[in-house]
Amino acid sequence: MSIRIGIYGYGNLGRGVEYAIRQNPDLAAVGVFTRRDPKTVKTRTGLPVYSVDDAIKMKDQIDVMILCGGSATDLPVQTPALVKYFNVVDSFDTHANIPRHVAAVQAIAVQAKRTALVSAGWDPGMFSLARLYSGAVLSEGKDYTFWGKGVSQGHSDAIRRIEGVVDARQYTIPVESATAAVRRGENPDFTAAQKHERECFVVAAEGADKARIEREIKTMPNYFAEYNTTVHFITKEELEEKHGGLPHGGVVIRSGVTGENGKNKHVIEYSLKLDSNPEFTASVLVACARAVYRLNTEGVYGCKTMLDVPPAYLSAKSREELLKTLL
Amino acid sequence: MSIRIGIYGYGNLGRGVEYAIRQNPDLAAVGVFTRRDPKTVKTRTGLPVYSVDDAIKMKDQIDVMILCGGSATDLPVQTPALVKYFNVVDSFDTHANIPRHVAAVQAIAVQAKRTALVSAGWDPGMFSLARLYSGAVLSEGKDYTFWGKGVSQGHSDAIRRIEGVVDARQYTIPVESATAAVRRGENPDFTAAQKHERECFVVAAEGADKARIEREIKTMPNYFAEYNTTVHFITKEELEEKHGGLPHGGVVIRSGVTGENGKNKHVIEYSLKLDSNPEFTASVLVACARAVYRLNTEGVYGCKTMLDVPPAYLSAKSREELLKTLL
Repeated sequence: MSIRIGIYGYGNLGRGVEYAIRQNPDLAAVGVFTRRDPKTVKTRTGLPVYSVDDAIKMKDQIDVMILCGGSATDLPVQTPALVKYFNVVDSFDTHANIPRHVAAVQAIAVQAKRTALVSAGWDPGMFSLARLYSGAVLSEGKDYTFWGKGVSQGHSDAIRRIEGVVDARQYTIPVESATAAVRRGENPDFTAAQKHERECFVVAAEGADKARIEREIKTMPNYFAEYNTTVHFITKEELEEKHGGLPHGGVVIRSGVTGENGKNKHVIEYSLKLDSNPEFTASVLVACARAVYRLNTEGVYGCKTMLDVPPAYLSAKSREELLKTLL
Repeated sequence: MSIRIGIYGYGNLGRGVEYAIRQNPDLAAVGVFTRRDPKTVKTRTGLPVYSVDDAIKMKDQIDVMILCGGSATDLPVQTPALVKYFNVVDSFDTHANIPRHVAAVQAIAVQAKRTALVSAGWDPGMFSLARLYSGAVLSEGKDYTFWGKGVSQGHSDAIRRIEGVVDARQYTIPVESATAAVRRGENPDFTAAQKHERECFVVAAEGADKARIEREIKTMPNYFAEYNTTVHFITKEELEEKHGGLPHGGVVIRSGVTGENGKNKHVIEYSLKLDSNPEFTASVLVACARAVYRLNTEGVYGCKTMLDVPPAYLSAKSREELLKTLL
């Protein structure tokens, strides 16, 4: 029997989850839950659409609810609220607030005998695992996370809020000489600007003052002021044609030493090259839904993260098969 | 209080464990156990040396015994025998026999309320984790493991058994065009020879027939006959000077697709560049010893592998610290 999955929220991530479930024969999508009028939402693969108001009524038809909302305002409310009725997975990615989010979900999950896995995805998520494993193994060393080349939604949004900007896309790009130094095991210290640079493609409104827009971008604190930032003005057509996707990725590198006087050097590198950031994140969430279902079945309740879950629980393969073919 | 570790066997791996424990303040080495006369063994850091015959007497002084013997004849006997008295970690790496090894250890461990973690290291081990995670996330895809550039002890030994060979070192080298094709997401099919080539450095006995030695190497079934193999004859001095280390490494790459008609491509890559194969393996074993101790303390008995252990258990950091600083 398949594990029955609900999709709560239907933006890029929700659509990614919809497709990802189809790639996993042991999982089945029950439907999509939306805050919009369900009649106005058409799913990509013909999944039924329900109002979020009807979700709780359907709790016995859903083994795991995957929450596909945003970290700013949706998940801090939705995850604690829904874990009372469902096993849940979310991709809460505001790093600084993760401990508080975990604590909020934990209390309710334990009481409701539900299992939650929060902050799944690739960072936090797969990159966290890379940092954890490489740090545990090379205890004397240093690790580095580089993001990109990829579209940063937060930075793109920040540009769009500038007066006179019609649309924008911002790419975060790792500085090549920085990654090279880390790969050589040099353990350098970097400022933020030495690790990443920012490239912006901006569609300006007709007659807008491009010099002012460029200045406002380049001087925006936290987002751009500290970085080497390039701004290109392009047409709306060019933006859609060449920058319509949401690629991303990055690399976690740890270099460390072992042996007598630390004479032997080791470099562990984990990298992702993703054509679609939301679809890859969705694929991680779906594997986590499988793990959550298994944990709950075994009576493991509360709020977990990817760091807490035995790796084998994420795989569709049986442990026997894993030991035989993969280990 | 530190976790007290015993080191069972004192070759390259045992010495690596000795050094690795010193890099982890939460662990303490109790001593080395050897089949040799303890009086003839001097440890690198002054650890006490005991006879293996005295190990069981010391069972209450040791929280985890790390078994540093070989997979061919030592571990199949030692791990089941010792798990009756100790929590154990081993690096059993004969892939085909892992299920049998796990089963043999499991039965005894459960009865003795001990915890074992077998087949730890980097392959099996870290590479297995890379294969598992990337396969669970990109369910529609294909993965590839390339080994090297590094010294293969088994292949070096095979050359040494040829008449007229004094010493030898064999490097396994990934074929560059093959890794490049995989990184581009082409999902190629390879024969063994298309993935790896073999480079041999051989010291021949004075007057030995080098042409015959080279022919015997290149035609040796399973080891060399199927591969593009290069043989260099060098002096004993050159071998020691230039090929004295035991570097190794490799890469696990999975490429897969997501979304509508699988239109988006993703590549996950995990790579290791190791100056010392045994010291890196030892570092993995030591992190696993920490996990084994914790599992046993919580009443989780039986035979585990790295695929079964919650990642956080390997880290010296508390879960709170991990959630706050690493996730």
